[in-house]
Amino acid sequence: MEKRPPPRAVLFDAYGTLFDVYSVALEAGQLFPGRGDALAQLWRDKQIEYTRLVSMSGPQHYRPFWEITREALLFSAEKLGLMLSPEAELRLLNAYRHLSVFPENHGVLQALKARGIPTGILSNGDPEMLAVTVKGAGLGGLLDHVLSVHPTRRYKTDPAAYQVGVDALGGPARELLFVSSNGWDAIGATWFGFTTLWVNRSGAPLERLGTAPHHTGSTLRDVLTLFP
Amino acid sequence: MEKRPPPRAVLFDAYGTLFDVYSVALEAGQLFPGRGDALAQLWRDKQIEYTRLVSMSGPQHYRPFWEITREALLFSAEKLGLMLSPEAELRLLNAYRHLSVFPENHGVLQALKARGIPTGILSNGDPEMLAVTVKGAGLGGLLDHVLSVHPTRRYKTDPAAYQVGVDALGGPARELLFVSSNGWDAIGATWFGFTTLWVNRSGAPLERLGTAPHHTGSTLRDVLTLFP
Repeated sequence: MEKRPPPRAVLFDAYGTLFDVYSVALEAGQLFPGRGDALAQLWRDKQIEYTRLVSMSGPQHYRPFWEITREALLFSAEKLGLMLSPEAELRLLNAYRHLSVFPENHGVLQALKARGIPTGILSNGDPEMLAVTVKGAGLGGLLDHVLSVHPTRRYKTDPAAYQVGVDALGGPARELLFVSSNGWDAIGATWFGFTTLWVNRSGAPLERLGTAPHHTGSTLRDVLTLFP
Repeated sequence: MEKRPPPRAVLFDAYGTLFDVYSVALEAGQLFPGRGDALAQLWRDKQIEYTRLVSMSGPQHYRPFWEITREALLFSAEKLGLMLSPEAELRLLNAYRHLSVFPENHGVLQALKARGIPTGILSNGDPEMLAVTVKGAGLGGLLDHVLSVHPTRRYKTDPAAYQVGVDALGGPARELLFVSSNGWDAIGATWFGFTTLWVNRSGAPLERLGTAPHHTGSTLRDVLTLFP
């Protein structure tokens, strides 16, 4: 792969990368003992699946990420045979609006800020839920941009979704570093043209889609190695 | 929902609807005792996931279904920590080319033929793998059309993929019955405009995407109830 100069700016995926989407398993396990992990996993899988189905089917089928997140929870509970009371639903959705932040993230964002490198989020999340979660996590002052695919009515990995980052930060895409813990997102962003870092927190195999991210790491700290 | 006249023709999804994609679990279980179901399930999930990712990302990323099926197998084995020898890979891919047919299918196709109703497959599968599987299953003489999304370089639920059926059988789409056991496929086809029957073999909950298929059944025999 060709040598690339250090990027001008960094765009982070939000869900799974800055925020731990499986942190809802704790709340889920209190509501449904022994089933918390299964519910958190299926909820996440369904949420992603629904973004893809509506995006592939055309912008007239777009629904905001928060709606999709709720529908995915309701489906998952039904599929697993869990009786989700209105109170339980509210508790879980509230947990999703207040996801945990991975422990190294604040330090990494602070270090990028100290070096004067512009940063942002580029997320499937709709603006309102992103705003709540970013604020709750105390990341507001550390990010220059909080960008949502929402105006495009398309979800990642549709190129229109990634283009939101270029429109906000200027091109070319290869001068922007896109960071995701979701292997499919890192690959979609590579296809789009970003320089990419896959933060493979779980040691997952590379998705076999004929493309690899430019860089791979294991925590968000690996972002800093790309700014020597 | 408005009353619709009996459809002019019937299009069937192939994988999961006519062919039992989980029939590979038997071979997988012989190769990896106790892990056959897990491998068959993840293999199928990854295969579908990859069709969506390449389709969303643009036609330049299209790869034929057979290639995607192989890559999904390799990923799934690695993810599950299963050592897949070249011989084991060949055995499993061969099993996928010779999937079981659900027991009622021959009878249903024969009954439609006896009534003079045109029938076809409309599948994500590429033409070569479809031809092998249809022939091996003895369905060749019972289907008027074996249609693949392949020429469009898009997978379901992209409207271009469903349009293949209208192009072959003539419109409007609402006069064609599309039959799928995959809930997401039945919903995508409903969005597209087909009259739809979801053959919910496993008693799964309806996907929460804001749309329901026009009809729901539990075996392929329910197709015949729509031709009174």
